[in-house]
Amino acid sequence: MIDLHLIGIGTGNPDHLTRAAIVAMNAADLILLPRKGDAKSDLIDLRRGICAEVLTGATRVVEFDLPERDTTAPYLRAVDQWHDAIAVVWSIQIAQHLPNGGRLALLVWGDPSLYDSTLRIADRLRTDGMAMTVTVEPGITSLQALTAAHAIPLNTVGAPVLVTTGRRLRAWGWPADIGTIAVMLDGDCAFQTLDAAGVSIWWGAYLGMKDQMLIAGPLTVVAKRIVQTRADLREQHGWIMDIYLLRRDTSRRSDNSG
Amino acid sequence: MIDLHLIGIGTGNPDHLTRAAIVAMNAADLILLPRKGDAKSDLIDLRRGICAEVLTGATRVVEFDLPERDTTAPYLRAVDQWHDAIAVVWSIQIAQHLPNGGRLALLVWGDPSLYDSTLRIADRLRTDGMAMTVTVEPGITSLQALTAAHAIPLNTVGAPVLVTTGRRLRAWGWPADIGTIAVMLDGDCAFQTLDAAGVSIWWGAYLGMKDQMLIAGPLTVVAKRIVQTRADLREQHGWIMDIYLLRRDTSRRSDNSG
Repeated sequence: MIDLHLIGIGTGNPDHLTRAAIVAMNAADLILLPRKGDAKSDLIDLRRGICAEVLTGATRVVEFDLPERDTTAPYLRAVDQWHDAIAVVWSIQIAQHLPNGGRLALLVWGDPSLYDSTLRIADRLRTDGMAMTVTVEPGITSLQALTAAHAIPLNTVGAPVLVTTGRRLRAWGWPADIGTIAVMLDGDCAFQTLDAAGVSIWWGAYLGMKDQMLIAGPLTVVAKRIVQTRADLREQHGWIMDIYLLRRDTSRRSDNSG
Repeated sequence: MIDLHLIGIGTGNPDHLTRAAIVAMNAADLILLPRKGDAKSDLIDLRRGICAEVLTGATRVVEFDLPERDTTAPYLRAVDQWHDAIAVVWSIQIAQHLPNGGRLALLVWGDPSLYDSTLRIADRLRTDGMAMTVTVEPGITSLQALTAAHAIPLNTVGAPVLVTTGRRLRAWGWPADIGTIAVMLDGDCAFQTLDAAGVSIWWGAYLGMKDQMLIAGPLTVVAKRIVQTRADLREQHGWIMDIYLLRRDTSRRSDNSG
């Protein structure tokens, strides 16, 4: 029997770890750390640093290479095949390092519930017949790191928030009657496709990390600066993780002068 | 000068505190704890317990009575007036306990960004001329506590999530093209107003606390049980905090047999 613990570790700031996350890491027999290729080597370094900082006992830490996603296939099919491939790699690692079962921990950026596939991959192993319990330790998401860094609320009073992806925002536009949108997984600055009048943006990259960068203001004023800053940072680091919040000034919705 | 730290403390489980939250609590000169009346005395007890457990230094803890919201006035106006009244109470407490300025911490359930008004109340004091910096420490939200307790993802692959209130869900129904809705602040089980065919619900109350209660299943099967359980628990405790996630089986959207 494998007792799998999916541990949300926040966005890179070890101080965003919860007490429960630290306890769960130390209670694990094995922590598997995925390597995602050279461009994102900062990310494995951050995970290694977190392990070095909080592990005090006999927990083993083993690194493995994550398969790469086929970026030429249609998105949903490519993601599905990628998850299948990751499940196979997990099962090989488990057979090798926990042949008699035990407690396995995986460290998940942010929180395991939000735009993360670890739970779905674990489901594949259970469907394939692996005896496994799954426990989740929640972690601070990039969305909370963003609103905390800007010291802003996510929602206006009693109003809804749409959490979506750059891909969806680009394809569907801004849904009527929703004043606030949080956008994740956006590699192409989809905010450029919106009517910017009356819209404010709060953008953040490398949230919680030493290179954290924030830009906020009216979308008409700061959009170009965000696009340029994002491109520069991505070139400089070899990778970027960013997220943003958009809020429409609803008092101006019927004002054509903006 | 007042340095205000808004500290997300999660949903009642002290192990959901982050390391940064514990550091910020201990770095404060003063922590103000709001009392919300007898019915919710469990909540002040939880806050007192968290302070007792993590404070190690000279931080003072002072309790004050929160004004009550006028439940007879229209909602948004009542909330606005309530926030004005709380801002006045804060300024009195600050003048009394930090007359020469200093570091003030407020402990916020969940995270200060999500359906919480502490940031808006702080804005009122700054608008009124108080010299104040505001720093936010993110915390685990009830939404993360819910998905962690059920060990489910919030979103399906690449798909959006609407975070909304019971009031909005009841008034606006389920928006087209959105498969997942997280519902907060729902005192009236608004899910009863929906077409339940093909909808699953994951419900949780007192998340992260010792009395945590979970129910999940097809809405057609479990809706009545949730309504009854919620009413029983509310009567037993005198108060309830709950939240739920609804997911529509999108493969059945055009299937009339459900």
